[in-house]
Amino acid sequence: MNVPFVPTSGMLSLPQPYLLFLGDTKEPSYAKTAFGLRDWAGEACVGEMVCGEGSVTAGLPRLTPAEARSRGARSLVIGVANEGGVIAESWLPSLVGALEAGLDIVSGMHVRLRDIPALAEAADRHGRRLIDVRTPPAKLSVATGRKRGGKRLLTVGTDCALGKKYTALALARAFAKRGVDADFRATGQTGIMIAGGGMPMDAVISDFEAGAAEMLSPDAAPDHWDVIEGQGSLFHPAYAAVSLGLLHGSQPDVFVVCHRPGRTRVMGLEDFALPSIEEVIELTIRLGHRTNPAIRCGGVSLNTSSFDDVEADQIIAREGEKLGIPAADPIRGGPAFDALVTACLG
Amino acid sequence: MNVPFVPTSGMLSLPQPYLLFLGDTKEPSYAKTAFGLRDWAGEACVGEMVCGEGSVTAGLPRLTPAEARSRGARSLVIGVANEGGVIAESWLPSLVGALEAGLDIVSGMHVRLRDIPALAEAADRHGRRLIDVRTPPAKLSVATGRKRGGKRLLTVGTDCALGKKYTALALARAFAKRGVDADFRATGQTGIMIAGGGMPMDAVISDFEAGAAEMLSPDAAPDHWDVIEGQGSLFHPAYAAVSLGLLHGSQPDVFVVCHRPGRTRVMGLEDFALPSIEEVIELTIRLGHRTNPAIRCGGVSLNTSSFDDVEADQIIAREGEKLGIPAADPIRGGPAFDALVTACLG
Repeated sequence: MNVPFVPTSGMLSLPQPYLLFLGDTKEPSYAKTAFGLRDWAGEACVGEMVCGEGSVTAGLPRLTPAEARSRGARSLVIGVANEGGVIAESWLPSLVGALEAGLDIVSGMHVRLRDIPALAEAADRHGRRLIDVRTPPAKLSVATGRKRGGKRLLTVGTDCALGKKYTALALARAFAKRGVDADFRATGQTGIMIAGGGMPMDAVISDFEAGAAEMLSPDAAPDHWDVIEGQGSLFHPAYAAVSLGLLHGSQPDVFVVCHRPGRTRVMGLEDFALPSIEEVIELTIRLGHRTNPAIRCGGVSLNTSSFDDVEADQIIAREGEKLGIPAADPIRGGPAFDALVTACLG
Repeated sequence: MNVPFVPTSGMLSLPQPYLLFLGDTKEPSYAKTAFGLRDWAGEACVGEMVCGEGSVTAGLPRLTPAEARSRGARSLVIGVANEGGVIAESWLPSLVGALEAGLDIVSGMHVRLRDIPALAEAADRHGRRLIDVRTPPAKLSVATGRKRGGKRLLTVGTDCALGKKYTALALARAFAKRGVDADFRATGQTGIMIAGGGMPMDAVISDFEAGAAEMLSPDAAPDHWDVIEGQGSLFHPAYAAVSLGLLHGSQPDVFVVCHRPGRTRVMGLEDFALPSIEEVIELTIRLGHRTNPAIRCGGVSLNTSSFDDVEADQIIAREGEKLGIPAADPIRGGPAFDALVTACLG
């Protein structure tokens, strides 16, 4: 993928490189954002910082905000979550210290940074920015439906939270390895931090949903690929509006269906059966056709993290055979994933 | 329909009855909002008010704000638009006078009332409210998909701006005339003013779109009907997200397709052909099925305002025969509309 990412006008743009803040968390599962940044935007992370005693580590150099600043860091990114999605009182001295040292603060948490008086006051005093990546840019446009230059791939899903971001990142990286000019286009908070910019599609006002997706992947050269992180599912009773606006505005040439084998009900809405992969392919083509009549399915991305290697290989082979299109788990990679990449590039 | 309308918790609620403000407009087409309120919420309009010399009239008594207040008015509604959707400087003395007389101000214009210093200051001084009906309620929920009690009808369209609000109003009124307990549920600014409450669906954040639609038509008695104003079109390249969230959250038992015969391209997006009525029926059933497997098409509402009576009758008869379902123009009424109402009630 293109690094550093250069956001185009209108979308969120984050000050990189980062200092990763891990708080006083001892539970690795709370530090997923930091691990994601290390794994997918390692070149944009100069170090990590903890507070209090004991903490998880992302394996990066431990730096003070001043040290990080001297190594080029431009912002501190809150890389941990905790229960309730709040900024802990115990974190505030560290965060204020970062502002004093000349770093902006970037957060993907539900609470808005500016609503915390100590941070708002320190940011104003030191002329620093508080950036909530869940807050969309102020000026969005209504979609035009106009066909844009360049190629686009969108990851779609049978449900939420089963690998659409990971799949898009892995495909963008694989495209780049083959010498293809490609950008990962982020639509959720972690993806936006990884990319250094993007569009928080679920926080956009509905009237502008497709328009925001158009802004996210602007006109490009004919051989350029935007690999766009999907959101929700066209079959999700709560989030289908997000998925459809993103599909229409992205006007993808290719989509990849993400699925987690074994999941049979919509997560959190157990009354609703998950659609089959075939149903997702058919409906995505049907609806995506409206803004790109050439839309096609590139293949299937299967999240097999809950299976052992033998089971996973069997599942991947079986699904690919059943559907007659490439199937792979991007985390496992291998020839199956190579075949998926080849099919997507067409 | 039920008058006065009692908004349930969570949705916008407007202080009725109204004094209609017509400004200094001389052009009747700019006063559509006032005429709509007179025609559909006449019992909620105590009078009208102009400023400057010469103005259109809605045919209501001309009252000062103090007179209107003494007749029970609780708010002044801006019933005119002008080019640019702004509040004219020349209107400000009248609007401030209304606040002084004890009226709130209700606006559906793009500019926010509170962003006009003279109004914000006067409202604060007199303890009055400035209500922008384009601003959704603060606390919205994510949709649950749970089946609610009562019956629901949603108007859908081949495009924007061809009669979805009018059709829903006419159906709600016709239901009430037959003794059916029915509420019109408004989703756009004019509809919300008419109903005295509702949900501005196009201004809701995408993640909450279906949830907002669920709030708009809450649990009801088994024989109660909510007749819900549609928005956009599932085939609209910019607004389909709004339409799909509204469809999923409304979980309609019945929908009526609204179309304007003669329109062949999407309004404002001439590159896009309008879908056929058959395509809209099929896709609405397909997508609506997700939250209500019993969804069915009640018939077709045709806006024949650009045709003479003979042509209109021919068009209505031809479409009904071709589709094999009731077709009518609610403005023209007659036996065709009666048949549509009967088919909707099932």
